[in-house]
Amino acid sequence: KTSFKIAVLPGDGIGPEVVNESTKILNAIGEAFNYTFEFTYGLMGAEAIFKTGNPLPEETLQICKESDAVLFGAIGDPSFDNNPDAKVRPEQGLLKLRKELGLFANIRPLKTYASLIDKSPLKREVIEGTDIQIFRELVSGIYFGEKFTDEEAGYAYDICKYNRDEIAPIVHMAFQEAQKRRKKLTLIDKANVLDTSRLWRKVCKEIAQEYPDVELDFMFVDNAAMQLILNPKQFDVIVTENMFGDIISDEASVIGGSIGLLPSASIGNENALFEPIHGSYPQAKGKGIANPVASVLSTAMMLDYLELDQAAEKLRQSVEYAIENKYVTVDLNADQYYSTSEVGSFIADYI
Amino acid sequence: KTSFKIAVLPGDGIGPEVVNESTKILNAIGEAFNYTFEFTYGLMGAEAIFKTGNPLPEETLQICKESDAVLFGAIGDPSFDNNPDAKVRPEQGLLKLRKELGLFANIRPLKTYASLIDKSPLKREVIEGTDIQIFRELVSGIYFGEKFTDEEAGYAYDICKYNRDEIAPIVHMAFQEAQKRRKKLTLIDKANVLDTSRLWRKVCKEIAQEYPDVELDFMFVDNAAMQLILNPKQFDVIVTENMFGDIISDEASVIGGSIGLLPSASIGNENALFEPIHGSYPQAKGKGIANPVASVLSTAMMLDYLELDQAAEKLRQSVEYAIENKYVTVDLNADQYYSTSEVGSFIADYI
Ligand SMILES: CC(C)[C@H](C(=O)O)[C@@H](O)C(=O)O
Ligand SMILES: CC(C)[C@H](C(=O)O)[C@@H](O)C(=O)O
Repeated sequence: KTSFKIAVLPGDGIGPEVVNESTKILNAIGEAFNYTFEFTYGLMGAEAIFKTGNPLPEETLQICKESDAVLFGAIGDPSFDNNPDAKVRPEQGLLKLRKELGLFANIRPLKTYASLIDKSPLKREVIEGTDIQIFRELVSGIYFGEKFTDEEAGYAYDICKYNRDEIAPIVHMAFQEAQKRRKKLTLIDKANVLDTSRLWRKVCKEIAQEYPDVELDFMFVDNAAMQLILNPKQFDVIVTENMFGDIISDEASVIGGSIGLLPSASIGNENALFEPIHGSYPQAKGKGIANPVASVLSTAMMLDYLELDQAAEKLRQSVEYAIENKYVTVDLNADQYYSTSEVGSFIADYI
Repeated sequence: KTSFKIAVLPGDGIGPEVVNESTKILNAIGEAFNYTFEFTYGLMGAEAIFKTGNPLPEETLQICKESDAVLFGAIGDPSFDNNPDAKVRPEQGLLKLRKELGLFANIRPLKTYASLIDKSPLKREVIEGTDIQIFRELVSGIYFGEKFTDEEAGYAYDICKYNRDEIAPIVHMAFQEAQKRRKKLTLIDKANVLDTSRLWRKVCKEIAQEYPDVELDFMFVDNAAMQLILNPKQFDVIVTENMFGDIISDEASVIGGSIGLLPSASIGNENALFEPIHGSYPQAKGKGIANPVASVLSTAMMLDYLELDQAAEKLRQSVEYAIENKYVTVDLNADQYYSTSEVGSFIADYI
């Protein structure tokens, strides 16, 4: 297969700017390797609400379902965040998309770049050599459980629910990844308090039988939040439920020194979506200062997923070349920096 | 008032060792200031389960209710953590005690010590001057919501529920603390997804009207987990719900360089409990290597609560004197160190 249908959802804030660099670079890869990437654009998020009233229009969902992969920018807008009464929210679009496409595993690789290691708030000796892969369950748990607010009575609730079938697939995936790596898997949970965590622990223990070469251990989420900073090198592969994964993986992003570098892949049985970890960063919108690298490395994960291994390799090399040669945005070097599109073009040209 | 009834719950692991230093030091304070502290001991946690089958025996609860304040050590035991099927758990004792005593606010001050700043995994320039006060809601939310496991069907759930009356008291407390400090309050939530978080945001906004001199802002918990490490100095007072507070405050403990230093107070309308942030640390049990400072500084918070301001001041000075003069346990100085009880005695003697 040499021709691919890519759904492109630029989303909100700096989303459109960074995604634009990804498509530019995919075109360069297409030329270099003789692939065709056909882009179909869809509305999502605040942008989609403003134009259609719906954070995930039916048309966008169709485009995604018919594509080989989805490239996504970012979502979120302050006009909704500060309004607790808004009934329709950008985030609902992303959550619904994840659910509809069955993207049960959010995968976030975390490494340090030699030339950027001193940008981290953490000391060099603490982080140097860190190499973690986080698997966050993405379509269940409290973000998807029943929610309810009774304005009159003045209460609200959110239900966190898991069943075995929602836990097992991502646990298998994480064990398999651990087998290819340092053979260590850590489940992060709060099994001393929560029933859902105890179910996770149980399912993990059972599945561990099938992967006797992988060492499985358990860590409470409060302790994990500490250990990730005290000694990140102790981790190899991490697997966890949706909300803990949200918190822990954003926290872990500080290790590399810039959230502007971190990609993620959200994988399901039939679909996959690739997005930077950073949010919509509305303050930077339209200024040309956003770092496109997270989106570009998410694109490299997409190439892995499409089994275009050489192209993925080439793309990662090009990104490293740009970073090593300080062809970077202002977040990485305030003394001499380039715009979002200059960095993207530099990488595209190098390819 | 010069005579005080103190309930002492040593608990599990290193709990008894560190609490022992606190009572030793309270006796020294009693002598120096002419106060009487009358200690009554109670069983709690794994220890209590082994001896009585109940993690919080009725007698312990009575002792606490009849006291002016409770000194607590730590809870937790690996034999329960690794058994997802255990029906009775040490943690239930602590959760029940918090609920029964109505300890709705867990307060954790975070500061850096000049002589220990280089122990932190974070760079000096990132943390120097950090001074944060975290208010964690302690008797509601998902840790106390209905929980359920259906073994047959293979699912489990936990309910996070809040009503206005559970939110308002701690929010007022946090605003009042902010007024005495740098006048900035940050609510940590996940209001872009959770109904309970939106209720928190709403209640905070309403209460903010009564504290016009305090600046209130909001931060999503995933972002907060990042910001605490990237730039802890941006925070003054933080208020948050139970589970986010659990994660965030343990994470924040890395700032100071040792969790062995961090105290906490759990305050209710009629009762108060003081405990170190660190857990039961079973690997260190009985070795005399545990750092007693977190327990001792929790005792200082107890003296504040009992309005023994001079004694509290004196105790904090003594701790600082010990630290500055490297009279510390092995976690703080591997080259030259003292035992748990040597450090406690040094502080007691200084008083
Ligand atoms: C926007 C929000 C719903 C989302 C989440 O919490 O899942 C984001 O924080 C993420 O991590 O992708
Ligand atoms: C032991 C456990 C139930 C407890 C909690 O999570 O509340 C502990 O982690 C804490 O933070 O005091």
